[in-house]
Amino acid sequence: MLIQARVTVTLKNGVLDPQGKAISGSLAALGFAGVNAVRQGKVFDIALEALDRRTAEADLNAMCEKLLANTVIEDYAVEIV
Amino acid sequence: MLIQARVTVTLKNGVLDPQGKAISGSLAALGFAGVNAVRQGKVFDIALEALDRRTAEADLNAMCEKLLANTVIEDYAVEIV
Repeated sequence: MLIQARVTVTLKNGVLDPQGKAISGSLAALGFAGVNAVRQGKVFDIALEALDRRTAEADLNAMCEKLLANTVIEDYAVEIV
Repeated sequence: MLIQARVTVTLKNGVLDPQGKAISGSLAALGFAGVNAVRQGKVFDIALEALDRRTAEADLNAMCEKLLANTVIEDYAVEIV
């Protein structure tokens, strides 16, 4: 069956995010005064062929561990949509 | 009130995504045979101070239009968490 999944990779708490800081500064410069913090992450929309949801989830977790996320500094979440 | 929001920015359908293609190729090379397609997007976790949810949503949409997304080639979704 064809599975459509969304993998979200975000920096762990405590890891510095200069890109997020820069975006936060730009938003303030544009007049958005209420912005306290911005953290940027990545999202992957993956279409994959798998036997069932369970196999797909296992595969997606393995993809994150091996390629999509740097688990030293990043967290990931897998969601089948 | 402090609002925590997640903004997801993804490429519109039909827009070429060479980065996604490269990831898809790498996943295949790693042995994940079932992967049909990968599209990469961005996610922004934003903490902002706003009067209420409604104001926050309006602000977040304006942020997307002005800075976070290139609406010619990208779609965005705002979600208050």
